[in-house]
Amino acid sequence: MYNQTMYELGSQPSIIRELFAYGLQQAKVVGAENVFDYTLGNPSIPAPAKVNQSIKDILADTDSIAIHGYSMAGGFDSTREAIAKNLNDRYGTDIKASNLYITCGAAPALISAIKALLADENSEIMVVAPFFPEYRPFITKNGGNLVVVPADKEQFQIDLTKVESLITENTQAIIINSPNNPSGVVYTEETLKALADILTKKGEEYGHPIYIIADEPYRELVYGDVKVTFIPTVYKNTIVCYSWSKSLSLPGERIGYVCVPDQCDHAKEIYDGVSGAARANGHVCAPTLMQMVIERCVGEMPDLKAYDENRTLLYDELTKMGYKCAKPDGAFYLFVEVPNGDGMAFCQKAKEDHNLLVVPGEGFDCPGYMRLSYCVSNAMIKRSLPAFQKMYEAYK
Amino acid sequence: MYNQTMYELGSQPSIIRELFAYGLQQAKVVGAENVFDYTLGNPSIPAPAKVNQSIKDILADTDSIAIHGYSMAGGFDSTREAIAKNLNDRYGTDIKASNLYITCGAAPALISAIKALLADENSEIMVVAPFFPEYRPFITKNGGNLVVVPADKEQFQIDLTKVESLITENTQAIIINSPNNPSGVVYTEETLKALADILTKKGEEYGHPIYIIADEPYRELVYGDVKVTFIPTVYKNTIVCYSWSKSLSLPGERIGYVCVPDQCDHAKEIYDGVSGAARANGHVCAPTLMQMVIERCVGEMPDLKAYDENRTLLYDELTKMGYKCAKPDGAFYLFVEVPNGDGMAFCQKAKEDHNLLVVPGEGFDCPGYMRLSYCVSNAMIKRSLPAFQKMYEAYK
Repeated sequence: MYNQTMYELGSQPSIIRELFAYGLQQAKVVGAENVFDYTLGNPSIPAPAKVNQSIKDILADTDSIAIHGYSMAGGFDSTREAIAKNLNDRYGTDIKASNLYITCGAAPALISAIKALLADENSEIMVVAPFFPEYRPFITKNGGNLVVVPADKEQFQIDLTKVESLITENTQAIIINSPNNPSGVVYTEETLKALADILTKKGEEYGHPIYIIADEPYRELVYGDVKVTFIPTVYKNTIVCYSWSKSLSLPGERIGYVCVPDQCDHAKEIYDGVSGAARANGHVCAPTLMQMVIERCVGEMPDLKAYDENRTLLYDELTKMGYKCAKPDGAFYLFVEVPNGDGMAFCQKAKEDHNLLVVPGEGFDCPGYMRLSYCVSNAMIKRSLPAFQKMYEAYK
Repeated sequence: MYNQTMYELGSQPSIIRELFAYGLQQAKVVGAENVFDYTLGNPSIPAPAKVNQSIKDILADTDSIAIHGYSMAGGFDSTREAIAKNLNDRYGTDIKASNLYITCGAAPALISAIKALLADENSEIMVVAPFFPEYRPFITKNGGNLVVVPADKEQFQIDLTKVESLITENTQAIIINSPNNPSGVVYTEETLKALADILTKKGEEYGHPIYIIADEPYRELVYGDVKVTFIPTVYKNTIVCYSWSKSLSLPGERIGYVCVPDQCDHAKEIYDGVSGAARANGHVCAPTLMQMVIERCVGEMPDLKAYDENRTLLYDELTKMGYKCAKPDGAFYLFVEVPNGDGMAFCQKAKEDHNLLVVPGEGFDCPGYMRLSYCVSNAMIKRSLPAFQKMYEAYK
């Protein structure tokens, strides 16, 4: 009588959203200062001042009908030109406006790229654990088959032996997310080049390209002098999906893009497939005011000082207590081993005993860990440290 | 090697977009004043002043992190409450915030509603010719089967006998778009009540509800004292899809909703299905700044004076020449019979001989007609009249 699959997907609570809602509820009971919510990846630093200033400027200097009217399905030419220039200036690439399809955020970008690459009902898309949980419905509810590369629990790089062994004739792409959610790890250029070699070799073996879908919303969120490799520079068959959700703190404004560089095999067919998927899924013509804002703000960089302070404080204090943690070079997450190996139980107890809300690694296909989103106030981190200490003592 | 279906969908030019692009090109050759472009349904009146004022107010009175941060997947509670109150005040309904799922515009709203109702691979969604061309990919590329009710070429109401004869055990819903794109006709309450009776009877016969998906972006665009029936008041199993694209002249801002009233059979399952479809298709969390704008502007009404002047001028002049036209009570379209019955040929000649760009009815599954979007300048209409006259003389 109705669509059972969609009903189940819509009625299944996401564990992250459930914990977040619990925190809001508990704040009313015990006071907001006694709830330590590390669940959501919602930026806690405001958008650069130029964003809101640009909105004001656009309202003042642009015709209202143009601001709020339709753009072409794939976005304004001028916005796409600004994005292409910014990428080329930074990475020495030769990306053209016509390679870019502006989307209503990261999710439509990923889904369009995935959908464009699903050749038939056997097509497989590979993901590397730990991974963003929504990859699963993005792939499986759009006709693809999900293949999970188990986590490299030593370094949280990519277990390349496993990648190679899991590639089949049906492998169409592998999603690479660096800096990574949930681990905060940045994949090294060495890792990416080795991956590229495997994909090239296997692609030749099976007679068709195996693409990388580079999911890059955290590209600009790195600390110290760590370098984030722009993957098209090391592997030609790379399709880039981006969003300004994190870099410009605009998660609610739904603005991102898919980039299919000319160097990709079948670039035209894949770009058109992205357009077709955007049409089939109903997200052509990304929000126009925000497209104009991006055109003016594409060169803005986030001020990462607050995140970096949080990262250092939390990493130092937790490791001092005895917790083990992947090296957090980017994004705004720590991925921490739970002392007794049972992430679900640890997170449940942390919630019940301490109103300490952390997300079990099970949700990211990596049991025995917890994800902490440190896009929170530094004061909350300090207040939460005794709870982490007690949890460690109870479970070590 | 890639998705052939998506590639074809993305590389097929839409005839409307193609004509529009031709017009831009020709304007460079013959001068913009000599191109008469009636192709696009892009509002030509600006958004009400309160929209841009609200943006400025929100930037001034709301924390930047809140403005641009994530909302809940289905939208802010406060925005949904404002929309529900507005509907209830106008229509005497009992819609709750929890019945509303805010979407990134009309397309995601329709697709989510369609997808939530597709019970299995045999499920059919019915549409009434003439209809918005994108209904076709929205249905067929999301797993549904499209069934077209041929046009009632007398009144451009709904041919109810044909509806009844086309309903099968697999009919899950019928999309009703009133005021209608492309005909500009408003379905009478009498028509809608008779449709409701058929759907109720057939639903009982087949043992499951047959829903109306009410696609209502033109709800507020009516002229004179014509009444637009709010369909949930005459048929309980109505799911409403809305967008502020036309009523507030915000097509580029991608903001709309799905409403699944409690009175619907399986309301919870369908609402959850809408949520699931939004998640699978990647359009959860509609643009937040625009959600805040809607909360403040939901009571604003469009100033239709300019459209009404255009409607009257164009209808009067064309009928005086001899053209026959459906009674244009709403939206901003005229649907005009072409003199010799061949819409494609007429539109091609109008383009070639006069730079008169009109969309053939073939694109709306209703051959022998042309659609004119009169959301243009009044001066352009006046300049275009000799071309319409010559075309009539040439084809009558």
